[in-house]
Order: sequence, then C-alpha cells, then structure tokens
Amino acid sequence: MDATDAQTACFEAGIKLGSLYHQFAGTPVSPDSAASLATAMEAAIENQPHCESVSVDILPARLDTTHGYDELTGAHMVVEVQVAVESHIVRARMDVEDGYPLMRLVEVRSGTA
Amino acid sequence: MDATDAQTACFEAGIKLGSLYHQFAGTPVSPDSAASLATAMEAAIENQPHCESVSVDILPARLDTTHGYDELTGAHMVVEVQVAVESHIVRARMDVEDGYPLMRLVEVRSGTA
Amino acid sequence: MDATDAQTACFEAGIKLGSLYHQFAGTPVSPDSAASLATAMEAAIENQPHCESVSVDILPARLDTTHGYDELTGAHMVVEVQVAVESHIVRARMDVEDGYPLMRLVEVRSGTA
Amino acid sequence: MDATDAQTACFEAGIKLGSLYHQFAGTPVSPDSAASLATAMEAAIENQPHCESVSVDILPARLDTTHGYDELTGAHMVVEVQVAVESHIVRARMDVEDGYPLMRLVEVRSGTA
Repeated sequence: MDATDAQTACFEAGIKLGSLYHQFAGTPVSPDSAASLATAMEAAIENQPHCESVSVDILPARLDTTHGYDELTGAHMVVEVQVAVESHIVRARMDVEDGYPLMRLVEVRSGTA
Repeated sequence: MDATDAQTACFEAGIKLGSLYHQFAGTPVSPDSAASLATAMEAAIENQPHCESVSVDILPARLDTTHGYDELTGAHMVVEVQVAVESHIVRARMDVEDGYPLMRLVEVRSGTA
Repeated sequence: MDATDAQTACFEAGIKLGSLYHQFAGTPVSPDSAASLATAMEAAIENQPHCESVSVDILPARLDTTHGYDELTGAHMVVEVQVAVESHIVRARMDVEDGYPLMRLVEVRSGTA
Repeated sequence: MDATDAQTACFEAGIKLGSLYHQFAGTPVSPDSAASLATAMEAAIENQPHCESVSVDILPARLDTTHGYDELTGAHMVVEVQVAVESHIVRARMDVEDGYPLMRLVEVRSGTA
C-alpha cells in the first residue's frame, strides 16, 4: 500500500533524527564548545527537505571532562525535530530514558485541525 | 495525537536510512573495497531496533577512480531497508532520481493482511 | 626508532585534519548554514590534544544549491590547523589542488628558533 | 622549514588514524557484526594514499550488549596502521591506556636501513 502523507511525515522525522545522530556522534565536545556544536547541528539538519525546526541541547553536566573534552553521544543531548508534509506535522524527540538514548514520535497532527 | 504503529514503523524506517547515510558518507571506497563496505553497512544497521533487513548495493561503475578511490555518497549506492513494528511492515529505499539521491517509502503494510 | 617531538607534532597535525574531514563530511550545508558549521568544526577540533588553532573556511560559491543545500566534502572548504608538541610547531592545510582536496604539511619549526 | 619525508610519513599516519576514528565512531556494532565492520574499516582506510596496511580489532568483550548492540568508540578497539613515504616507514597505533583511547607513533624508520 502507498504511504499516506502522515506516514511520510513520520518517515521524514526519522530521517532527520537518524541523520543528526550519526553525522555528529563522535565529535569532540567540551562545555565551551557545546553551544556552537548544537547551533551547527540545528542549522545543518534544518537544511533537509520538509524540516521545519530542529532544537539541540547538549548538556554540559553530562560531558566527561576528565581529559578536557568528551566525544558526543546520544547520552549528552536532547533533540527535538518538527517536520511537515502537506498539512501533516510531526514532532519527534531523542532523549535518554533508562540510561539509553531513545528516539520516539511525540506528536502526529494535521495542521488544519 | 499519538502515533499509530504503522506511523511508528515509518518513523523507524526513516531512522535507519538517515543513520546509514550519515554514518558512512565520506568513507574512502574503491571498486575493490565496495563489497566489504556494503556488507558492514548492512550488518551495522540491522543491529538497530525493529530492523528486519538492510540491503546495500555500492555500484563500482558510479565511483570516480581517477585517484584510485572515491568517498562514498548517496550517488554511489542503492539501499533498501525493511522494518517491523507489531504487525506493520515498512520498506523504504534510497536511490538516485534525477541525479540526486532520494529516500522514500516503498510499502506500508500489515503483516497479517 | 622512537619518534622525535617534531615527528610527533606532524603526526598530531595529521590526526586533526583526518578527524575534521571524516567527522563532518556529509553534513548538510547551505550558504546560510556554512558559517555556523565552520565555527563548530573549529571549536570541536581545537578540543583535541596539542591543537593550538583551527581555521575552517567553507566557500558558499563552491556549494551546489540546486536543491537548496549540498553535503560537505573537501571540495567545499579550506582548512588550516596548528599544533604544538614541546617547542615544535606544525602547520598543516587542506585545500583543493587540481580538482581534488589535498592535505599537506605547510611548516615544521621549533618555536624557540 | 619544509617537512622531511619522515615527517610527512608521520603526518600521513596521523591522517589515517584520525580518519578511521571519526568516520566510524558511532556505528552500531554487536559481537556478531564486529568482524565485518573491522574488515570494512581496514579496506576503506587502505585506499588512502601512502597507506600500506591497516589492522582493526574490535573486541566483543568490550561491547555493552545490554540492548543487543553498542555504538563504536575508541574504547572498543585496537588499531594499527603502517604508511610509507619514499623510503620512510611509520607505524602508529590506537589503543586504550588508563581507560582512554590514545593514538601514538610506534616506529619511524627508513626502509633502506
């Protein structure tokens, strides 16, 4: 069966989170450089088709600074993306749950509702 | 509104394609190393939750071998993933269309149908 | 034979350029997002040991904007790094030569000379 | 001062380790997929100029398999590369020391010695 527009919006939201995670995982990051990295991640992924907004929060308190810097993983950040396909709006989120980063759909709605 | 299982399956399919693309884009690749890279990409992404199968075909004829090797982009490959969430099965594909790599849903179906 | 400090400085410079390239290759980038990405790349790699400075210039004129954005490759940027090990300073550079990105050592000197 | 061939060989060795690390960090990996990933990493980096050999050992015992798979970091692997520039041979290695992955030069020699 062909995908509906709402399903396509969910697919697009998944692409954004998967792209963001695997493009930037491993990046050297410290409390001082966290903000510029988060800003660049948002602007990079917002370039992708159907992407309305990306919010990345890298939490300095979660970084191991024993050696001055850490390497970015899902454990360090909270990410939220919003995509739109036709009138369908999808929000998805990555956050740590039970000690592991998890990606999930937060909301699927029709913009005209 | 909460996502349906079928929508979640579409979301998961997007995560797989976005992850695969942005994890491996930029990898040095030649006609000789293309097969081992494709095999590793399949096995890596199949680790992800809900992922039933991944097929990666890196086409040697699309590689620029002027300097002996190229760096992997979406223009070099055809990828297909299949994910399952509850009884819902989603297939998604990345291929070149009109000269640019495009990710799209191929099929959304209920496994019990 | 054990490496000299000058050789170690050259090794460290190579690590920085290789890291920078393969961490960020494939990132979605447009003329509007190029500056934030370059800033984040500089700050990220400057976290690495022995790294004194990193300069990244992503040239908007080199981006293919047919679809609104491009994916970062070595063809789009000029990078210079400076590292120091003991009194030895090394500068290295990545730029396009003959149509292909090339990494090379620019200068190896003793800071006390 | 211009770099010597031995210094250039050290620089090239650094590029290989930095590239390998930041290309593949974050890849989903399990005990079952570790071997195919290691093989692909070797073959990919051996494509790079001046690279004679790459050996990657991903140690299954170091992977966290609580959720079935882990994401590759320097803590999971031992890597050795050998590069040659003119008659100069350089070996470099990445391994965990004091709980953190460290890259270092192992040997710099003239092949004619």
